Amino acid sequence: MSKDMRSTASLACFTGEPLFPETLSVGRPQSGDTDRFFDRLRDMFSRNWLTNHGPMVQELEAAVEVRLDVKHAIAFCNGTVALEMMLRAQEIKGEVIVPSFTFIATVHAIRAAGLMPVFSDIGSTHLLDPDAVERAVTPNTAAILGVHTWGQGCEIERLQFLADQHGLKLLFDAAHAFDCTYRGRPLGGFGVCEAFSLHATKVFHSFEGGLVTTQDDAVAHRLRLMRNFGFSDYDTVVCAGGNGKLSEPAAAMALTNLESLSSFISVNRELHEVYRRSLQGIPGVGLLDYDPRERQNHQYVVLEIDQDGFGMSRDQLLRILQAENILARRYFYPSCHRMEPYRTLDPEAGHRLPVTTSLCERVLVLPTGGQIAPIDAEDIAHLIGFCQREAGAIRARWEHDA
Amino acid sequence: MSKDMRSTASLACFTGEPLFPETLSVGRPQSGDTDRFFDRLRDMFSRNWLTNHGPMVQELEAAVEVRLDVKHAIAFCNGTVALEMMLRAQEIKGEVIVPSFTFIATVHAIRAAGLMPVFSDIGSTHLLDPDAVERAVTPNTAAILGVHTWGQGCEIERLQFLADQHGLKLLFDAAHAFDCTYRGRPLGGFGVCEAFSLHATKVFHSFEGGLVTTQDDAVAHRLRLMRNFGFSDYDTVVCAGGNGKLSEPAAAMALTNLESLSSFISVNRELHEVYRRSLQGIPGVGLLDYDPRERQNHQYVVLEIDQDGFGMSRDQLLRILQAENILARRYFYPSCHRMEPYRTLDPEAGHRLPVTTSLCERVLVLPTGGQIAPIDAEDIAHLIGFCQREAGAIRARWEHDA
Repeated sequence: MSKDMRSTASLACFTGEPLFPETLSVGRPQSGDTDRFFDRLRDMFSRNWLTNHGPMVQELEAAVEVRLDVKHAIAFCNGTVALEMMLRAQEIKGEVIVPSFTFIATVHAIRAAGLMPVFSDIGSTHLLDPDAVERAVTPNTAAILGVHTWGQGCEIERLQFLADQHGLKLLFDAAHAFDCTYRGRPLGGFGVCEAFSLHATKVFHSFEGGLVTTQDDAVAHRLRLMRNFGFSDYDTVVCAGGNGKLSEPAAAMALTNLESLSSFISVNRELHEVYRRSLQGIPGVGLLDYDPRERQNHQYVVLEIDQDGFGMSRDQLLRILQAENILARRYFYPSCHRMEPYRTLDPEAGHRLPVTTSLCERVLVLPTGGQIAPIDAEDIAHLIGFCQREAGAIRARWEHDA
Repeated sequence: MSKDMRSTASLACFTGEPLFPETLSVGRPQSGDTDRFFDRLRDMFSRNWLTNHGPMVQELEAAVEVRLDVKHAIAFCNGTVALEMMLRAQEIKGEVIVPSFTFIATVHAIRAAGLMPVFSDIGSTHLLDPDAVERAVTPNTAAILGVHTWGQGCEIERLQFLADQHGLKLLFDAAHAFDCTYRGRPLGGFGVCEAFSLHATKVFHSFEGGLVTTQDDAVAHRLRLMRNFGFSDYDTVVCAGGNGKLSEPAAAMALTNLESLSSFISVNRELHEVYRRSLQGIPGVGLLDYDPRERQNHQYVVLEIDQDGFGMSRDQLLRILQAENILARRYFYPSCHRMEPYRTLDPEAGHRLPVTTSLCERVLVLPTGGQIAPIDAEDIAHLIGFCQREAGAIRARWEHDA
């Protein structure tokens, strides 16, 4: 390790220097070649077509359709608006079953679309548990909104079976899942629709942006109308809608990033492998392993910290890492049912969500991407191992200092 | 005139060449210095802070607060999202009184926020008629949403009096009105909140963007929360919200355009004056004159075509202009109550809206901005005069050709 780590005193949370001089974060933006980006912007200014379904948005949608092997890709100004419009386009009323272990936008989008979220528990893979979903179905259920957390596909066949059985729309929040597969097929083509995020923190970004993908021509048509205020032609509005448009500079960034996406993912994959190897055997640390048969974007390096085995809690480890300038992150903490307005709407939801409740105390996501070298990932893993071995001494020192 | 206009045959809708080799349009984007813009983007990439209330969004908000002399300016990803969040932030239920003579986004935003639009008629200035507003008030009315059409301030005192009398929120759609005044004070500081559009077609743009301005600290706080999913800190969501964030590249464009805004407005002002002088005395053509005591951005050159006086209808004149590559535009045609879903929701609304109904058959907006020289505006005005003088011959030829 680049820093001499012989005693707990060498930890930055005590008296040592931070392991890294600059902060490493989760979801630090990765962008493609800026010269290519600027060239696209120069072309844009010479056309003076700056937004309103411009040529670069069209090019982006076509490229995504090819890459994800899906009939329709519809670009939006951000992932949350994409989710909202995807939900509104279903023309449904009532309840939507959704995990609580997700970013709050998933649930806010349901509310914004005038629907009621009903939280379902997840399984050990962090994905919707179809048995829990089945228990959550009521006569008011209109849809299931699965989340492909960390780019892993939900248990789609079982969810589709439930949806068919109960006449529900099956939708996916694929915010994490660009360029990931399920049973060898790219995510994006399952259920009625899937919504992606192109936010700056995602593996593939357009500063702010989103996409809805679908195989359904009618839904795609409705989404395209709704994105542009319901205009069917210059003078005719045929339905409610809003402004969901992606601007041309955002599309220019996405097109540029798409050219580098495979290399971003290679870097992530290598770092994931280094983390895996270096964390192996540390008691109380589980690294979420991805199904090797699927393509993954490896944007998330997800640990579960078991307090008993590790000797300290996830939050205690987080405190140590942060002092070392390793800005690891809790996800999704607290889970959605413990945030407003959902906590007030359904204060008892936690009783139905034991896996969620337990997991959100254990999950820790580590930095990855071009900001760190393999040696950095090794150092981070070794630091975590050191914390496990010295957990007793560290805790004693905290108690002493308190 | 640059083209020889001795006979109706010389019109492009018959056998002539178009007056302009390239199209002139309404709302063609005007952007500031692209080198300055690219410099800002280079700084952004070196910071790698691409969105999430970055330094350029903060700088933009501060600059707007100074320019509009308002306590809070909150940037949004587009004007429609700004309107929606402005409405949601009022925490109201029920009906919102709004003109039908507006862009459909005004009304869609009311629907999207779970409220019911109630259309009110306008007066001869194209602005909400306070008497009509008063007649539209019911026990379910929660707010009045005035529109500062063409950058003209509504009759604010009378609307504020009605709002106070009936306990209503007074809000404004100021999409057109950046850098315009009312009673010498910049629009943006009236009512509870005002919402601006920074869309590419506006006098001051950020590709796509919007702003809400307010003097009210509590409303501003709520809007800032709602724009970012209701997060009050890293781990705490205190209310419903969404993604209303403006990205840094959009803010970079806005900051760059702000540096050129006064010169854009000067060009517009001069063109408006040329149009005014050159259109003077043409029977059946009224040019909407702005109150000379107020500051105006002059982004809209608004004609009313009186068919009887002019000798042909607005739509017939439009057809001639378009053939000459003058892409004048009807506004707001058809008005909102004649578009879906409002036509179906309130099929009788037109009976209450005689001024709206009549006006939207007469209004024609002409191109302005840096794309045209004063001589072009003169040519356009002279062409309109020619059409008036030759109206009988033109109509006869159309009938003959039909």
